[in-house]
Order: sequence, then structure tokens, then C-alpha cells
Amino acid sequence: MIIVPEKEIGALITRADAFTAVESVFASMAKRTATNFPVIREAIGHADALYGFKSGFDRAALNLGLKSGGYWPGNAAKGITNHQSTVFLFDADSGRCRAVVGGNLLTALRTAAAAAVSVAHLARRDSKVLGIVGAGHQAAFQLRAVAEQRGFERVVAWNRTASKLDGLAKAAGEIGLPFKAVSLEELGAQADVIVTITSSFEPVLLDRHVKPGTHLACMGTDTKGKQEVEAALVARATLFTDEVAQSISIGECQHAIADGSVTEGDVGELGEVINGDRPGRRAEDEITLFDGTGVGLQDLAVAGAVVDLAVEKGVALEVDLT
Amino acid sequence: MIIVPEKEIGALITRADAFTAVESVFASMAKRTATNFPVIREAIGHADALYGFKSGFDRAALNLGLKSGGYWPGNAAKGITNHQSTVFLFDADSGRCRAVVGGNLLTALRTAAAAAVSVAHLARRDSKVLGIVGAGHQAAFQLRAVAEQRGFERVVAWNRTASKLDGLAKAAGEIGLPFKAVSLEELGAQADVIVTITSSFEPVLLDRHVKPGTHLACMGTDTKGKQEVEAALVARATLFTDEVAQSISIGECQHAIADGSVTEGDVGELGEVINGDRPGRRAEDEITLFDGTGVGLQDLAVAGAVVDLAVEKGVALEVDLT
Repeated sequence: MIIVPEKEIGALITRADAFTAVESVFASMAKRTATNFPVIREAIGHADALYGFKSGFDRAALNLGLKSGGYWPGNAAKGITNHQSTVFLFDADSGRCRAVVGGNLLTALRTAAAAAVSVAHLARRDSKVLGIVGAGHQAAFQLRAVAEQRGFERVVAWNRTASKLDGLAKAAGEIGLPFKAVSLEELGAQADVIVTITSSFEPVLLDRHVKPGTHLACMGTDTKGKQEVEAALVARATLFTDEVAQSISIGECQHAIADGSVTEGDVGELGEVINGDRPGRRAEDEITLFDGTGVGLQDLAVAGAVVDLAVEKGVALEVDLT
Repeated sequence: MIIVPEKEIGALITRADAFTAVESVFASMAKRTATNFPVIREAIGHADALYGFKSGFDRAALNLGLKSGGYWPGNAAKGITNHQSTVFLFDADSGRCRAVVGGNLLTALRTAAAAAVSVAHLARRDSKVLGIVGAGHQAAFQLRAVAEQRGFERVVAWNRTASKLDGLAKAAGEIGLPFKAVSLEELGAQADVIVTITSSFEPVLLDRHVKPGTHLACMGTDTKGKQEVEAALVARATLFTDEVAQSISIGECQHAIADGSVTEGDVGELGEVINGDRPGRRAEDEITLFDGTGVGLQDLAVAGAVVDLAVEKGVALEVDLT
């Protein structure tokens, strides 16, 4: 069994590796050679924690296993991350545990990679202005990954607490992009690509904010009740997602589905676009929206890449579990 | 993170340790301080394998995590066990992975321990003859664990292929008990305690075989469609189980539920008996039946005990996953 500790991940996997892994598994999902198993998510009644699993199998890449962990709100006070996860990969030929991989940075990388894959396949080629809604831990990961996909010239961002945008400004500066904190009206009027990455339970970005031709990557909604953008904006956009079943139940599309303005058939898989089996953007003034709900197969894909890289670079720690 | 390889388990945990762990977690389940999460079980479409998870949380023992693995029918040809599993324990206070433990022997021990706990709490004190139906890998584990719970004087056993009873005869000999291969009629007429441990999809042991006062531990049925004993025998018995929801859907009680001779309310939790909140055996001529369906919390309980023992004995292998 191979072990890759959390602290090794950053030096092993690049954003490009994560992009390739996530793009491949989205393609495999759309070809039905990869399947996510049902998600388990439980309030355990201890330490206010939410604990669970996301799991699946990619028959093409032979990635089998799960990510387990959850949200422990008391961790920050102890100096460790509230979101804790570990990825376990299994040998698809024997059922033996093949690898244990720290899952915290990988979760951030795979979520950012999903937005980046959507931008690569759906945003206008001439996109110049990148808009970010939200300024939490994940926002800078989104900025860095998405910024690489087009020739962006500047970043505009909004957050409920504007003072928290400093980290995002720093991340933009590091990759040489001018950064400006703006209102939602300004953000929507200027941005060609918008990433929403909040934990909101009510619409933040409204239909009237967003101009024609925009690509949106809505990455924050992964639970019933959460909502980042107005349902009318979802109804106006051409819709793509990682997994339709999640999109319409716990993803950003849940609200437009609930009010009847969108039906399940309106939501396409990004993997189909990657495979050339579904048109992506069809017009310059079309609004495209990627509902990134987050699937276990993304975690397995990046963890599988990390294990391969660790073996290749000779830093894999091996333990005999037999 | 602590790692306990499969090969270390046998020297670490005794049958008495497994008994205590399983009895405690059944008690915790009945007090609602321990909960099993939904079971995931998937035919993965590769290597004819069935893969999945059993998971849960015991707030009393702070055992959180899952057993993952499954059934790989091609393994035997490669010289490894078809059933492969690994247990992952999580720190309930932080969500970090606390331990990875080989789960193959533990699965055998916890299944045997469940039958033993049922015998300890439900069989007649004066039970003299132990009957075993089935002669697979698990049968000898059942024999050894159950034999310790009463002053048994001999073992009678039946298997569809009688020649396969040699291993069971050997196991009985090792603990000094006379052994005899018998017909099902003889087995039912003689045995005071009967353990069924087959993978049958039709009733093997019939109602007319079994005499009043018998305790049955039906340990083989864990899937829709499987059946070891005639539904009329289930209807005649006072019923106990590890988890009612599993018993009536995938356990031995599923058939008597389906034909209407038993209702959900007829099936009690063994944990309630352990806690003194439900009567166990009420009469010498009563037939008691324990439907052992197997729950994730049993796996976590024995794995937790193994980790404690490994730390105590200084054989725990520690790896920093942070």
C-alpha cells in the first residue's frame, strides 16, 4: 500500500496534472465508463461534524475507491483545517487497498480544475476579464486555475465582506493580473468569465447583473438549499454540469428545476462536450453555465495522478498491509 | 496514522476481545448512541467484483469510519482471498484518518462474535449439543466462538457436500469436542444451538427439523434473495437481530416479512437484550432466532480494539499522513 502524506501533494501535482485528470474523468463519466456511487453524508452528532464519503469507479483509468472525511467546525481553533479528507484507492483487479492519499489540497485542486475545464471548453476564446464571487479559502485556487485557460487581462471580484478580498488580490498579483474589488453590477458588466465560490443560501449574483456571452462556473452549491445565482440566470443560460443527478438535486440547478423554468433534459454533461458528443458554446452572445457539484471520481482521478507521480519520482512511501 | 497489517491481526485480538467489542457496539446501537450509515454495494463491471462500504459511528466508543472492499471472485486463482476488505478509522474529534487496519480476519472474527453474543444472551444455559449448518471458510470461526459460550459436549454438522465437513471436524477436535456429520433431521432433533452459515438462496433448515427450546443464529443471509431457514421457522421463533432495518430487508427475516407471517415489530434488537431493555429467552421451550446481518459498526468495533491492542503492545506502525 502506497501512502502519500498531505504535505507531499503540493510538490507532486501541478494544476496542469489536475486539469488533465479531471478532464479525463469527466470524459469517462459521459462515456459511461466511470460511475459515481451514492454519496453518504451524515451529521454524526459529535463535534458538530458532517462526515461522509464520495466514491466511484473509472473503468478506463482503473481508479476505484473513495474520499472520506468531512467538516469539523472546531478544527480551526486547534490550528488545523475544518475540511478534512483522505482518499483511499483500491486495486480494481484484487479489491486490496492500493493507496492512502491526503485529500485536503487535492479537494481544492480538483474543484479548481473542474472550473478550469469548463472555461477551457465553454468560455469565449476572447475572454479578457475574470470575475470571482466569493473570497474564501477556495477562491484563490479557482482564480489561479481558471486564469490559465484564457488570455485574461484583469480580475474583478466581489465578496460580502470586501476586506476579505486581500488574499485574492495577492493571488492575482502573483500571476501578474491587475485586481479590482467591484460591486456585483460592475462585476457582471465587465467579466467575460465568472466563477462563483461561496457558501450562500440565497442568490448573490442576479440575472440582471450578467451580460450576454458570459461563461459562469458556479462552484459553491453542493447541498440542498444552497444557492449562488438567481434561478432566472440559470434558466437563461445553456447548462452544463459534472453530474446531472447532483446538479438538479443538490447543485446550482436545483432552484430552476424546482420553479419549473429548467428541466433535467436542459442540463448537459461537460464530459459530452469534451468528447465532442454535445455542442459547447454555439454563439458569442450565449450565456454558458457550468454547475460544478463535485463528484468522488474527481477526487479519485487527482489522487490516482498523485500516486503515479509519487511512484515515478521515487517519493512513494510503501507499507505492506497484507 | 496507525497501520495494522492483516498478518498482525491474529496475534493481537482474541475471540474474547472480539466478543466484548461486538457486545458493546450492539448495546450502543440499541441505546441509539451508535448508528450505521447506509450501505453502498456496487457491481463495478470489472473483474466480476462487488465493491462497497459499511460505515457508521459509535459515539460511546468514538469509533468512526468504514470498512471498504468486497468480493473479487478471480482472487483465489491468484492465491489471495476472494473477500478483501480494509477498515479505516477516523478521529471523531478532527476528521483525520486515524488508522488503516486489514479487514479480512476481522470480518470473520466479528461475524463469529455476533453469533457468540447471541448465544450468550439467548441460548438455554443447559445447551449441550451445538449444530452447524454449512462448512465454508466462516463455519470454523463460528464453531470456535459459539462453543465457548455454553458447556457444549458435542458438535453435529450438516453440509450439502458432506465431504467438505473435514475442516469443521478438525476445528471441533482442536477444542476437544466430539464431532459428527448428520442429516438435517438429526441435527435439528439433537442440537440445542444451531448456527447456519451458508450462502443459500433457498431454505435449508426447515421448521419441522427444529425442536422446541433451540437457539438459532442465522449468519449467512446478507442480501435480498438469500435464505437459510424456512420462513415458518422464523415465524415460530422469537426474533432478534443486529439491525432491524437490515433484518427485514436483506436478512433472514425478509421472507417471513414478505409472506406476512412476521411484522417489523416482531423483530427485536439483541442490543436491547444486552442492555436489559427487552426480555431475552422467556421459556425453556421457546425457540429464539438471531438474524445476524452484519453491520459496519461491528467492523469498526473490532478494528478499534485491534488498534488499541497494537498501541498497547507497541506493534502499531505509525505513519504521518499530515
